[in-house]
Amino acid sequence: MFYVIGLGLSDEKDITIRGLEAIKSSTRVYLEAYTSILMIEKERLEAFYEKTLILADRDMVETQSDEILENAATEDVSLLVVGDPFGATTHTDIILRARALKIPTRVIHNASIMNAMGACGLQLYNFGQTVSLVFFTESWKPDSFYDRIKENVGLGMHTLVLLDIKVKEQSEENLARGRKIYEPPRYMSIPTAVAQLIETEGTRQEGILNPDTTLAIALSRVGGGVENERIVAGTLRELLTYPAEGYGEPLHSLVIVGKRLHHLEVDYAEAYAINGKSWRDTAKDVYQCALD
Amino acid sequence: MFYVIGLGLSDEKDITIRGLEAIKSSTRVYLEAYTSILMIEKERLEAFYEKTLILADRDMVETQSDEILENAATEDVSLLVVGDPFGATTHTDIILRARALKIPTRVIHNASIMNAMGACGLQLYNFGQTVSLVFFTESWKPDSFYDRIKENVGLGMHTLVLLDIKVKEQSEENLARGRKIYEPPRYMSIPTAVAQLIETEGTRQEGILNPDTTLAIALSRVGGGVENERIVAGTLRELLTYPAEGYGEPLHSLVIVGKRLHHLEVDYAEAYAINGKSWRDTAKDVYQCALD
Repeated sequence: MFYVIGLGLSDEKDITIRGLEAIKSSTRVYLEAYTSILMIEKERLEAFYEKTLILADRDMVETQSDEILENAATEDVSLLVVGDPFGATTHTDIILRARALKIPTRVIHNASIMNAMGACGLQLYNFGQTVSLVFFTESWKPDSFYDRIKENVGLGMHTLVLLDIKVKEQSEENLARGRKIYEPPRYMSIPTAVAQLIETEGTRQEGILNPDTTLAIALSRVGGGVENERIVAGTLRELLTYPAEGYGEPLHSLVIVGKRLHHLEVDYAEAYAINGKSWRDTAKDVYQCALD
Repeated sequence: MFYVIGLGLSDEKDITIRGLEAIKSSTRVYLEAYTSILMIEKERLEAFYEKTLILADRDMVETQSDEILENAATEDVSLLVVGDPFGATTHTDIILRARALKIPTRVIHNASIMNAMGACGLQLYNFGQTVSLVFFTESWKPDSFYDRIKENVGLGMHTLVLLDIKVKEQSEENLARGRKIYEPPRYMSIPTAVAQLIETEGTRQEGILNPDTTLAIALSRVGGGVENERIVAGTLRELLTYPAEGYGEPLHSLVIVGKRLHHLEVDYAEAYAINGKSWRDTAKDVYQCALD
């Protein structure tokens, strides 16, 4: 059996009992290490699972999937994935390959940011499509996310914005010289994300994102408990100027609040507001939310 | 500490290690038994968790939340919820109440249909808002879901349709006589759901749902493994006439496929198609999907 196992959001204890049993029964266990970022050391996982983990980077999962799948028709082999296995297309690729090889496959689900974002108090059924925001450079500022947000905003839907992660990136020089030397990982922070959103609005000028009247909620390490999780709500400008350390450690995600906002959503998220009065006033006056 | 713990999708082994530890440390453990339906017996959970579970129905969670929260400032108390805790507004209510009482609270996330729907092969970021479909009666056929689907269809987004569950319903006679006698639970099946969609299209006539050219994917018991999980793909008409037993046991959910369909999504879901040729042909000719 080939298992694809979601590890959930935060640490070694977020795996399910079913997932842990599959790991224990496996002769090889791969840890996928690029579509998202594990918040803890591989060694800590190994100690808890009592198994050696084989790191599988993007190259390996995409181009050497037959190596991962070797013997999986007769033995148990597991691929561990941060969050839920269906968060990234790569995992559907390897499952398709397993099917083609007639290897039985089982997916073991877990929480991912795509449902755990409910922690901010906004209702999941009011979210539209999810967008990704990549690091802008001097010469490359892809803004198709703006069109997607515009679509959601037009319907009053909330938008989950996933922020860029750069792992195993090479500098231009190292790339040119063919040196496999990698830069340290980079994670987009909330202030960077908000600055890019505001910059894009400045370029596009379609009135979709207003620094002073668009509400948003920053999420970091959702599910990580009081010592790790941070949820911060405010206007885009409030989020931009909030002290960076207030957002906690990466990963960060951002939710842009849509106009179909319910008063219970406002109440719940108020506990996370940088400025409770500004949060409620904006919800009431700009979002026309029926508050007392 | 007041814990709200997601049980995941299927059975006693879908809980996380963190969730199980919280149960073990709790002096009282409530099992919420109405917003979704547990697929296994309470007794089986109790045996696995080695704890007695107190059933908490809607009345109790909504109107007697102080009873559930009693002593939670000084002892551990857990509320178990099928799927993820943020699937339903009721849980945000009780967390708000806990906050008001200054009781520390921790949410332990898990998979829910809102992310596990990725199992059908459609990409999560291409889903728009989620809709709910209730049982039609002779005199009551609420169709606001149609407007929501229309919004998603307009943008080419996929739509997750959650199907009605009737639990602890009273007959009109028992209700009138004040007798607390409840009807057996009812779960909307895929054929009923599809029939209601087609009926609504017949009434509204806005060309949003076409029995012969709208593709959809039925999901049941996602995450339940090969013995339980069923995924069936086809046109609405194919799904309507497919043998009911082919969909397996409840709960069922339905995904309506949007026009922004990627060829990898078509490839992946083809394994679940009632008629592979019709699936691909419709994806190619009607959805304009770039297939070979």
